[in-house]
Amino acid sequence: MNDVATALGRLEELAIEVPSWAYGNSGTRFKVFGTPGTPRTVQEKIADAAKVHELTGLAPTVALHIPWDKVDDYAALKGYAAGLGVGLGTINSNTFQDDEYKFGSLTSSSDAVRRRAIDHHFECIDIMHQTGSRDLKIWLADGTNYPGQDDMRGRQDRLAESLQEIYARLGEDQRLVLEYKFFEPAFYHTDVPDWGTSYAQTLALGEKAFVCLDTGHHAPGTNIEFIVMQLLRLGKLGSFDFNSRFYADDDLIVGAADPFQLFRIMHEVIRGGGFGSVSGKESGVALMLDQCHNLEEKIPGQIRSVLNVQEMTARALLIDTAALAEAQRTGDVLAANAVFNDAFYTDVRPMLAEWRESRGLPADPLAAFKASGYQKQINEDRVGGQQAGWGA
Amino acid sequence: MNDVATALGRLEELAIEVPSWAYGNSGTRFKVFGTPGTPRTVQEKIADAAKVHELTGLAPTVALHIPWDKVDDYAALKGYAAGLGVGLGTINSNTFQDDEYKFGSLTSSSDAVRRRAIDHHFECIDIMHQTGSRDLKIWLADGTNYPGQDDMRGRQDRLAESLQEIYARLGEDQRLVLEYKFFEPAFYHTDVPDWGTSYAQTLALGEKAFVCLDTGHHAPGTNIEFIVMQLLRLGKLGSFDFNSRFYADDDLIVGAADPFQLFRIMHEVIRGGGFGSVSGKESGVALMLDQCHNLEEKIPGQIRSVLNVQEMTARALLIDTAALAEAQRTGDVLAANAVFNDAFYTDVRPMLAEWRESRGLPADPLAAFKASGYQKQINEDRVGGQQAGWGA
Amino acid sequence: MNDVATALGRLEELAIEVPSWAYGNSGTRFKVFGTPGTPRTVQEKIADAAKVHELTGLAPTVALHIPWDKVDDYAALKGYAAGLGVGLGTINSNTFQDDEYKFGSLTSSSDAVRRRAIDHHFECIDIMHQTGSRDLKIWLADGTNYPGQDDMRGRQDRLAESLQEIYARLGEDQRLVLEYKFFEPAFYHTDVPDWGTSYAQTLALGEKAFVCLDTGHHAPGTNIEFIVMQLLRLGKLGSFDFNSRFYADDDLIVGAADPFQLFRIMHEVIRGGGFGSVSGKESGVALMLDQCHNLEEKIPGQIRSVLNVQEMTARALLIDTAALAEAQRTGDVLAANAVFNDAFYTDVRPMLAEWRESRGLPADPLAAFKASGYQKQINEDRVGGQQAGWGA
Amino acid sequence: MNDVATALGRLEELAIEVPSWAYGNSGTRFKVFGTPGTPRTVQEKIADAAKVHELTGLAPTVALHIPWDKVDDYAALKGYAAGLGVGLGTINSNTFQDDEYKFGSLTSSSDAVRRRAIDHHFECIDIMHQTGSRDLKIWLADGTNYPGQDDMRGRQDRLAESLQEIYARLGEDQRLVLEYKFFEPAFYHTDVPDWGTSYAQTLALGEKAFVCLDTGHHAPGTNIEFIVMQLLRLGKLGSFDFNSRFYADDDLIVGAADPFQLFRIMHEVIRGGGFGSVSGKESGVALMLDQCHNLEEKIPGQIRSVLNVQEMTARALLIDTAALAEAQRTGDVLAANAVFNDAFYTDVRPMLAEWRESRGLPADPLAAFKASGYQKQINEDRVGGQQAGWGA
Repeated sequence: MNDVATALGRLEELAIEVPSWAYGNSGTRFKVFGTPGTPRTVQEKIADAAKVHELTGLAPTVALHIPWDKVDDYAALKGYAAGLGVGLGTINSNTFQDDEYKFGSLTSSSDAVRRRAIDHHFECIDIMHQTGSRDLKIWLADGTNYPGQDDMRGRQDRLAESLQEIYARLGEDQRLVLEYKFFEPAFYHTDVPDWGTSYAQTLALGEKAFVCLDTGHHAPGTNIEFIVMQLLRLGKLGSFDFNSRFYADDDLIVGAADPFQLFRIMHEVIRGGGFGSVSGKESGVALMLDQCHNLEEKIPGQIRSVLNVQEMTARALLIDTAALAEAQRTGDVLAANAVFNDAFYTDVRPMLAEWRESRGLPADPLAAFKASGYQKQINEDRVGGQQAGWGA
Repeated sequence: MNDVATALGRLEELAIEVPSWAYGNSGTRFKVFGTPGTPRTVQEKIADAAKVHELTGLAPTVALHIPWDKVDDYAALKGYAAGLGVGLGTINSNTFQDDEYKFGSLTSSSDAVRRRAIDHHFECIDIMHQTGSRDLKIWLADGTNYPGQDDMRGRQDRLAESLQEIYARLGEDQRLVLEYKFFEPAFYHTDVPDWGTSYAQTLALGEKAFVCLDTGHHAPGTNIEFIVMQLLRLGKLGSFDFNSRFYADDDLIVGAADPFQLFRIMHEVIRGGGFGSVSGKESGVALMLDQCHNLEEKIPGQIRSVLNVQEMTARALLIDTAALAEAQRTGDVLAANAVFNDAFYTDVRPMLAEWRESRGLPADPLAAFKASGYQKQINEDRVGGQQAGWGA
Repeated sequence: MNDVATALGRLEELAIEVPSWAYGNSGTRFKVFGTPGTPRTVQEKIADAAKVHELTGLAPTVALHIPWDKVDDYAALKGYAAGLGVGLGTINSNTFQDDEYKFGSLTSSSDAVRRRAIDHHFECIDIMHQTGSRDLKIWLADGTNYPGQDDMRGRQDRLAESLQEIYARLGEDQRLVLEYKFFEPAFYHTDVPDWGTSYAQTLALGEKAFVCLDTGHHAPGTNIEFIVMQLLRLGKLGSFDFNSRFYADDDLIVGAADPFQLFRIMHEVIRGGGFGSVSGKESGVALMLDQCHNLEEKIPGQIRSVLNVQEMTARALLIDTAALAEAQRTGDVLAANAVFNDAFYTDVRPMLAEWRESRGLPADPLAAFKASGYQKQINEDRVGGQQAGWGA
Repeated sequence: MNDVATALGRLEELAIEVPSWAYGNSGTRFKVFGTPGTPRTVQEKIADAAKVHELTGLAPTVALHIPWDKVDDYAALKGYAAGLGVGLGTINSNTFQDDEYKFGSLTSSSDAVRRRAIDHHFECIDIMHQTGSRDLKIWLADGTNYPGQDDMRGRQDRLAESLQEIYARLGEDQRLVLEYKFFEPAFYHTDVPDWGTSYAQTLALGEKAFVCLDTGHHAPGTNIEFIVMQLLRLGKLGSFDFNSRFYADDDLIVGAADPFQLFRIMHEVIRGGGFGSVSGKESGVALMLDQCHNLEEKIPGQIRSVLNVQEMTARALLIDTAALAEAQRTGDVLAANAVFNDAFYTDVRPMLAEWRESRGLPADPLAAFKASGYQKQINEDRVGGQQAGWGA
């Protein structure tokens, strides 16, 4: 394996953005369960996110979702977050909850609907200027449920035009990341269903447009780390939405369903120059969570998630790349696989506990959270009002 | 092909049960769109269902969902339905929308929760006595999201005990049908995930327990008509929930995604004695719809659905079974496949229009619906109140 | 529906290339069954292919596979084919059956292996000059079986370099088409696994490089017609390998598993300008078969296949595109779907029989083949020698 | 976690049967690569298997495949194996490589073909009496490629009759295990495609018939450990065929694709009483490998495989079942998952190295194999003759 100290040294560069909506309620089409202590406001979401960062040192920024997180004064919100030790991150647009978007948003054949959707993104960019956010993330629910329902080609062309308008509005240091998704909520076709489509669309836009890879948005069996490799090679990997899945877009805790896959993904991120600072310059690939804590506690669920990413990153950093290259060069399949797996099977948890303590962080962030009384406090404080969820 | 007159003659036996909830609003976890004219009460749902039957002659019964369709007086409801020309059919229980069921219902390790879930089924059986329903359909959302979250074996044993209690309460002519589902809303394990589990559980219960096969509840690539064949062979196919899918449990209009599959399914239903009256005795296999009309109009969506089942049944009845058997016997793969497909590719729509007219039904039920002014009327009438949906 | 005469008129433009290897033996890793009459030489394969064209008028060219179809004199082979009424089409390279390619061919980290693979493609191009073939088709078996076995990024870069060398050797009117495949024979990663990779690689090559879409090479649930639409939109759809599947790359007869899907694909081909002559200029999209007749008779299997493509093309040409566009414009989901399906459910077989007869072709090509005595003749003639298969 | 000493103590009970055919050549339909040192005879296969056992102490028996491993004198073969320190295990029948079985074997509608297939199993049982084997394993390639090709119901009935004949021939202490497989080599329907079918068929046979679960034979996304749980609950889990997969039946090294899944499977095996001696009595569940070493070295591939099973069994034995039960009881999702994962993430390799050394085994069996010179020796010795593979 690689030298542990060197490997752990690079962990300093790890930063994971958490989504404000992970702290609100979520569920399935069958039921959304509410829980005590759920935030009612964006400020309360940020407070919860700040707690995650305080205990782990891993989550310095919070992604916002517009309109769920709309406020009157974003400068004040930024100040509020800074006061809690975190920053505001990616701005996520939403064109899937208005009745007008029933048959599409940026792809709509209605000029009025498309205008409305584009204007919403202009609003998001305005907010980005106030929050200092770098990335505008676009996930589209656009698609159809039945063959023949709409003209897929026309929609794709209109999508290109809409994105062009939005792209033109970006500030110099701002980026657009376009997310793809295999299916849901559309069940016949989705307008941005795969990385190829997102790549072709962002390639047409220009250098400030990138692909967002959500680890839960692929067909069964898809080799995700291959896509990571390819997008990094093409210079178009903008960001990750981390979560995990057994079936569809289950939005489970990252690493929970297939930890070995997360390890392989982080290996390709590192291999492809997508991790941390590269020659003194940020790689630009944003690592975000996008999850639903339907059944488990939300704040501990987020702590568990960032720790999972950290643990798998640490394992990936331990791969003895020289030995791996040598085994690969000689076609020694079992030796190459063994070098690779040796890092995966190494129990990095004790090292990471030490690493944390050396930085003044609790060795066991989940135990520290339980001991903190924070959950009890918010359960008591957050009474009345409307618990946050996807619709609010 | 088979003699057309003979084939069409057997169409008289086709009856498709429609679900009351198909007339209410439904959607995805992202959004439920409302539409004008949506029923506010179970009576309005039944009225819509009766319209489908009036125009097609195919949908003589309506399935109810408890508690969504709870009323004080089921005898009155039955009379109301009869007045509109339809009957009340299967009673569907619901153990997935109460907070108590967050971690399971009939499988729960909590005696109180399990008691509550069993009692709910007792209530359903009481209702069945009043509505004259034959079937109690149980679909369980029970499952877990994370490995280790619960003990799958203990849950399976408790499920068996709970079902035994419910089964013991059935009247002499009542049946229990247990539905299985591959995944959703649980994302790691589901307690009744496949036909094998439903078969093993209902086999243990006894002769009045059967399997319900929902066409959207299988893993990708599953040969569903094989399962139809096997369950009919084992004497355990109780009912169908018809719908169609491209990905997961999309709940699209039956036959919309893969009409050839529906044809193959209906062929196996007929081949295995599951269709209509068999030697003067009902086969007992109930054909139901279970769909969501998220984007399309609901009543026309239901008309389209029952017509799809009728068209594919007609095609399946046209298969020249003698020629098929001969080609199969001689190992003539292409000839056997050609006999099979010849029926599928036959355009039965003109014959069915004639068949309808000969029975005093409109040749084109969808056009007749549009011409009827019914939709306009309910759009005007059904103002105010709470539109029906999954939660009400 | 569209005017039938107009629709059928465009059928003249339909030409389907058949693969020489479809007439030889094929099978699974478990067993390859031999059959009487199987060709021993490329000339016998071409004779069989010519019979398909003679009876259907649909298959004017035969694709060759090098080295399986190597001969000393390609001019003579071309003349032989012309004498039977067919031409020689696409040249398919093979880098998956030599021991040297165990760990890769165009992606190999060994200069010698890569040189060998590139030179093989040079040889193919030389053959193309003699046969007058337009397209060089590259399907790579390259990939790995275990995580860590090789460096995916390095392989991708070397692939780009190898392709560049091959591309540079193409004649002015020659094209390179790069096929992608989800998996098999590699089971962890495949070097060209999806359309996105094939698109990115051919985009880097230039205007004479295109993507080949094999209908059996996708993940479960993939919307293939979307990819057809997208590649036509991007100007990069070079050719199809037609076949069908229920599970993996089953290589069944095109249209056999999901005829509705084939209809949808042909609709997008037509919609996107990929069908036949477009404004007096060939669209350039080659429609080829790539199938295995493991169990069924081979020549009738090929006849069935080209007829299936013709039938679904005819149905797709019948779509009332004006009515479809109007229904789409107004968001009438059911009406749009109905216009679409109306064409699919129309039984075009009688029209096509007439169409054939009007051109001096047999109304029923399969019956004509049976009546021709051709199979009996080749069963008697083709005795001794080595039956053709994938290895020869 | 559980007490390590206790956990490791139970490892004594672990025994993994290795398949004779893993030491021969295998491949895909595209290519089978040969390698130096590959056995030419069953004796050489057994010698290789014995080497695996010698170095790991984990593989005391070798499964045979008839007719690939046919010999004149099985008593002598048994003695030969015993001399090398291993026993002969499960007898695997083969009804997929004769031309007669093209359209089926035990399911064939031809009395002669079915007779031949049944008689082959009688021969296998005769061999079992000589080898002292307990289990007759039946995997059927039977199925069809096209809808309509054959009558699935008739085939299922004939399968039941054929199995009944074979079952009746079993000796008192012999068992029949029936394997199921999702698809391949048949591509439309498979006669024993799922555990439900294997369960229903073996249930009808009686107490000496069981299900064999091959970990690579399921639809994408299937929760395999649920099936393990269910079959153990129903008393019908007879044996495992271990291997791993990313896509279809890839037959990769067990644990290579998804080690966490193997851990979960072993947890359910232990939970359900399927591991080792239970109250002084063998559980009866046989753990076998069934893999293909297409690219990697065969003997080291087998060593890696048995070590993977041992490592994941050790991890599963480390689960703190009391803490797990408590977390489950209180609905603490994250705590339960954490207890579960804590065992998985523990690096058991150092403990296992010690465990091995304490038993006189090499701490690192793979290094010991490399140092032994065995491979070099067989490469030199095994020259000439026909290398073993699936066809011989």
